[in-house]
Amino acid sequence: MALYVYKFGGTSVGTVERIKAVADKVKRAHEAGDQLVVVVSAMSGETNRLIGLAKQMQVQPTERELDVLVSTGEQVTIALLCMALHDLGCNAVSYTGSQVRILTDSSFSKARIREIDDAKIRADLADGKVVVVAGFQGVDQDGNITTLGRGGSDTTGVALAAALKADECHIYTDVDGVYTTDPRVVPKARRLDKITFEEMLEMASLGSKVLQIRSVEFAGKYNVALRVLSSFAEGNGTLITYEDSNMEKALISGIAFNRDEAKLTLSGVPDLPGVASKILGPVAAENIEVDMIVQNVGANGTTDFTFTVNRNDYLRASNVLEGLRDQLGAQVVSGDDSIVKVSIVGVGMRSHAGIASTMFKVLADEGINIQMISTSEIKISVVIAEKYLELAVRALHTAFGLDQA
Amino acid sequence: MALYVYKFGGTSVGTVERIKAVADKVKRAHEAGDQLVVVVSAMSGETNRLIGLAKQMQVQPTERELDVLVSTGEQVTIALLCMALHDLGCNAVSYTGSQVRILTDSSFSKARIREIDDAKIRADLADGKVVVVAGFQGVDQDGNITTLGRGGSDTTGVALAAALKADECHIYTDVDGVYTTDPRVVPKARRLDKITFEEMLEMASLGSKVLQIRSVEFAGKYNVALRVLSSFAEGNGTLITYEDSNMEKALISGIAFNRDEAKLTLSGVPDLPGVASKILGPVAAENIEVDMIVQNVGANGTTDFTFTVNRNDYLRASNVLEGLRDQLGAQVVSGDDSIVKVSIVGVGMRSHAGIASTMFKVLADEGINIQMISTSEIKISVVIAEKYLELAVRALHTAFGLDQA
Repeated sequence: MALYVYKFGGTSVGTVERIKAVADKVKRAHEAGDQLVVVVSAMSGETNRLIGLAKQMQVQPTERELDVLVSTGEQVTIALLCMALHDLGCNAVSYTGSQVRILTDSSFSKARIREIDDAKIRADLADGKVVVVAGFQGVDQDGNITTLGRGGSDTTGVALAAALKADECHIYTDVDGVYTTDPRVVPKARRLDKITFEEMLEMASLGSKVLQIRSVEFAGKYNVALRVLSSFAEGNGTLITYEDSNMEKALISGIAFNRDEAKLTLSGVPDLPGVASKILGPVAAENIEVDMIVQNVGANGTTDFTFTVNRNDYLRASNVLEGLRDQLGAQVVSGDDSIVKVSIVGVGMRSHAGIASTMFKVLADEGINIQMISTSEIKISVVIAEKYLELAVRALHTAFGLDQA
Repeated sequence: MALYVYKFGGTSVGTVERIKAVADKVKRAHEAGDQLVVVVSAMSGETNRLIGLAKQMQVQPTERELDVLVSTGEQVTIALLCMALHDLGCNAVSYTGSQVRILTDSSFSKARIREIDDAKIRADLADGKVVVVAGFQGVDQDGNITTLGRGGSDTTGVALAAALKADECHIYTDVDGVYTTDPRVVPKARRLDKITFEEMLEMASLGSKVLQIRSVEFAGKYNVALRVLSSFAEGNGTLITYEDSNMEKALISGIAFNRDEAKLTLSGVPDLPGVASKILGPVAAENIEVDMIVQNVGANGTTDFTFTVNRNDYLRASNVLEGLRDQLGAQVVSGDDSIVKVSIVGVGMRSHAGIASTMFKVLADEGINIQMISTSEIKISVVIAEKYLELAVRALHTAFGLDQA
């Protein structure tokens, strides 16, 4: 008998019919003999409706009260799902975060889980019940309702799976798994049966929006096997787990890309110690997040300093650099907001030399100029002109053997 | 410094604007130096919306889960009201029934309050805060969410006022007080400044829908002074309290009436012991509530037995009697579903003889035939033909000196 935590997001429980479909899926798994804890989000649109009401009361709603308000969204879903399960003759009981109890710190709207009391849940499971838990919410030590922030229902699912030592945590969503790359760009993209936590983190932070990064980190930390599946279709989805001997022996697991980048360069800066912090300090002070950073030695004791930011921050970052140019004795500020980042990700590259050179050769063969390069242990990212995005991703997808059979 | 509990029903908090108006009223009273605990219902329509969702899940929704579901309605209101108060610079904090905690038994959907922990509320009041509490809900000893049943927010208000020994419990509603009778029937009806609990109970059970009977009983039991006021207008409303020396010396406080009655008679029943229970037992078994009962000795050792029921139950009750006729050896089953009950209510009649005869004479002078009579210590009710309702109520209103000056 296996113990699973199932998590269904807002879209999966967005209507009466969809809640009934979830109940049906849960009932079948329960009848097949599995122990099930089901975590649900608010019905899609409900959280935004509640926040809309709040903003009519107060431009900046008090965070404690906002958590009291929005936590009702999941509370509605747990009750409705239990009713749907009862209607199918499936024994089930609902708990809010506070009832479980999921103890958090007191950071309203972005609380962190401290401890989960699993006594009630274990007793109910032993009793043959399906346990339905409100995602996204908890309670602090003074009994105040807290929420974990947007996407927090994934975290609730993973934390419950860790506390209960569940066999797997299933994240049901509107995609049927993690793909080698975006199927809209590469029709031959393939669903992965397995991927490691590290790869998933690199894929996620590079723009794959399947899972909240925080829940993947959490799952990795507590060694919870995560599986991403579709709420609306059958299939085994993608298992996210630690590297093991049965792992597919692919060098590269996937190709991620990000269209939302822009790059900025400050050229001819006198190459003195501390120049990087003198440039990035003022940028950070403007709350602009910097992604890739490259510094190269230039001519005559000067250096060229290039970094990328989100395209929305391009103009603000340019203004910061213009303000710094004279102060740093730099010659030119230049930039480009029609660039993209393309990355190959895979734990296989750890043990294989030559991955980088293969990547660069593939791009060169297509006549694509590489503007920046950045590497980590399991990822190589390049910046190229936006117009080459599809060409680059498809060529790399084929070259690294990811195309569907 | 006085301590008040204010209770606002669903209509009073039915829109964003109305919640803001409530916040404004609360803030002014708080600034005037009063300590305030505010109990609110769900925004009007919300409870029905939630029940509608529940019924789409399950024809007879599980009561525990229904309570989890509908209790979100008040939780939304407490958060929104606190935000509106904060926006006005008024310090306030919200609590669900479970957070307070309002301990109840485990009768889901119709729980009874057992105990209220007033520690948090007292600390907050001492701290200068307005305390906003969700009406209608509590928590049982196992941590399950319970609700007190429809209209339960009044009960929450009264129970909190009792626990906190508040000076008064204000019930804000859409009428500005308790009237001598329905102003739609008698334009000269007058708002009462004071009325006793007993009178209010007789008025309420006879069809005045201002307050839930249960909360009036509760207020009487714990000697909580209740005041009914309008949310939308200024004014002192009506104070419901124990009889005291300052009470208006009116003989009759009000005239209540009920249009929803029908009467049934079983005539010529052999007059044997136990005949009443043989008739009413099968009626009760059909879940038909009986209101007035009159039994008279008839001719030749038989008796005539008459009772009234809600008009909606008239046909079902008739069928029950038809089934009983032969069994009891009765002669005739007859009935009338176009009758009404008119009652005069007042603690003054305790110490004054002749009230009944005055009532009967007033009706006789108008040519109104009395079909049934029933009396209690502070009430006399008569059943008359429906067509005489307005005539009877107006004549009695004038005769007992209730008309507005």
